[in-house]
Amino acid sequence: MRKILITIQYNGSAFSGWQKQKNALSVQQVLEEKISSLLKEPINLHASGRTDAGVHAFCQTAHFETNSVFDIEKLPKAINSSLNPNVSVLSAKQVPNNFHARFCVKKKTYLYRTYASDIKLPLFENGLSRINKNVLTNLDAVKTAASHLIGTHNFKAFCASGATVTSFERTIFDIKIKKNKNIIDFYFTGNGFLYNMVRILTGTLIAVGEDKIKPDEIPNIIKSQQRKNAGKTMPAHALYLYKVKY
Amino acid sequence: MRKILITIQYNGSAFSGWQKQKNALSVQQVLEEKISSLLKEPINLHASGRTDAGVHAFCQTAHFETNSVFDIEKLPKAINSSLNPNVSVLSAKQVPNNFHARFCVKKKTYLYRTYASDIKLPLFENGLSRINKNVLTNLDAVKTAASHLIGTHNFKAFCASGATVTSFERTIFDIKIKKNKNIIDFYFTGNGFLYNMVRILTGTLIAVGEDKIKPDEIPNIIKSQQRKNAGKTMPAHALYLYKVKY
Repeated sequence: MRKILITIQYNGSAFSGWQKQKNALSVQQVLEEKISSLLKEPINLHASGRTDAGVHAFCQTAHFETNSVFDIEKLPKAINSSLNPNVSVLSAKQVPNNFHARFCVKKKTYLYRTYASDIKLPLFENGLSRINKNVLTNLDAVKTAASHLIGTHNFKAFCASGATVTSFERTIFDIKIKKNKNIIDFYFTGNGFLYNMVRILTGTLIAVGEDKIKPDEIPNIIKSQQRKNAGKTMPAHALYLYKVKY
Repeated sequence: MRKILITIQYNGSAFSGWQKQKNALSVQQVLEEKISSLLKEPINLHASGRTDAGVHAFCQTAHFETNSVFDIEKLPKAINSSLNPNVSVLSAKQVPNNFHARFCVKKKTYLYRTYASDIKLPLFENGLSRINKNVLTNLDAVKTAASHLIGTHNFKAFCASGATVTSFERTIFDIKIKKNKNIIDFYFTGNGFLYNMVRILTGTLIAVGEDKIKPDEIPNIIKSQQRKNAGKTMPAHALYLYKVKY
C-alpha cells in the first residue's frame, strides 16, 4: 500500500465545489473516477480541505492510498489525459503512511482578487470581483486594518452562520495586499480558515477602503464575536486556494 | 448632428466577433440596438476595425452620428445599464464631424497572451494560450526575432489567405514582450494589421522560442511573402485589441 499526494489546479466555476455530492459535479468526483479507472481499483481522495462552489484552486492538495504499482512520475500526465478540462493534476509524489493531506497542513494561503472600477469591466469579471474605485486611494488604511487581523484570535465575527466547528480560534500569519493598476489582490496565510472567513475578511478590508469601517475598529469587531459587525461576504468566483504548506 | 466616439471593452468569447451578421450575436449588434433604443433613433456604429470571433477588446473605439440631445457625460452609464454583461462602454465624447473611428487611426496595439507550461493550467486557459515551456528560457532569441519585424514591410507571409486587401504593406512601430513568472505577453503596435497577422506573428515568435525558426531567418521569411514560411496561427481566445490611438 502506498500513499500518494497530488497537487491539483481547478477552475471552480465549472464545479459545485470540491466535495462529492449527489446531482452536482464536484472536483473530487471527477478526479476519483479518473484515478480509480486508471489504477483499476476504487480510490478515495482526502483533500487539504473543501472549497465551496465557484471557488478556484491554484494548488489544492489531496492524498489517496493505492495498491497499484503504477509509476508515480507518469501519474499526472496519465490522469490529465482526457480529463475534464477545468481540472489538472500538477504533480504527484509518494508520502509517508502517517501523512494526511488535511491534518498535516501547517499553513494555507488563500487569494482574493478584486478590481476597483466605477464601470463593470467584462475582461476582469471572470475571476475578479469589482469593488469601489475609492479603495485604490485608501490602501494605507486597508493595510493598517489588515495588520490588526494578524495573530491568534477568536474569528467568530468573520464566520458565516451554520458553521459546525468547536473552536473559532484561528491564527493568521500574514496578509499581503498587492496592487497592480486597478487590480488589488489579497493574500491571507493562516493555520486554517472558518466557513466563508476569507470572503468576510476581504469584505471587511474593502469596507475599510470605502471608509465605512475605521482601521482601529477591527480589534473591537474581533472582540465582539458578532458577524454583523464585520463586512459583507464577497462573492465566491474571485476566491482561490493559493497554496498549502505541510 | 453630433458625432460621438465611444470606447468599449468586451469579452470576445461571448460573441461571433465585432461585425454584425445574420444568425450570430455580434458586439456591434448588441451596442447598436441598445444605443438606438436609448437615443430613440437608429444609429450605426463605425469601429476602428473588426475583431474576429473570440477576440477580446480592452479598448475598442467606435463612432456614431446622432441628432439626440442626450447628455454625453451620462451616456456610458445609460448604455451599460442592463447591457449584455460581456460588453461595457468605458467612455463617450463628442468628436469633430470630419473624425472617423477607422480612417483616423494612427496606431493600434494588440496584445497576445500566453503561458508556458507542460501541463494545461485550467486557471490560465481562459484568455491565455498555452505554449511550450522551453520558450521561457529562450526569450532573448524571441526578442531578437521581434526586432527584425519592426519597420515597414510587405507582411504577406504573415497574412491568412482569403484577405481582400490591395496592399500587404504595414508598419510595425514596436513589439514589447513581457514575462511574469510563466506568463508571456506580446504587445504589437502598428499602423494596421492584416487578416490574422497578429496571431501569425505570435506563432512565428513562439516557433523561434521553440528553436524551430532562427531569429535571423525572419528577414527572409518577410521577403519570401510565403505564408508557409511563417509560424502557425495562434488561437483567437488569447488575442486582445489593447489600444487605439488617433
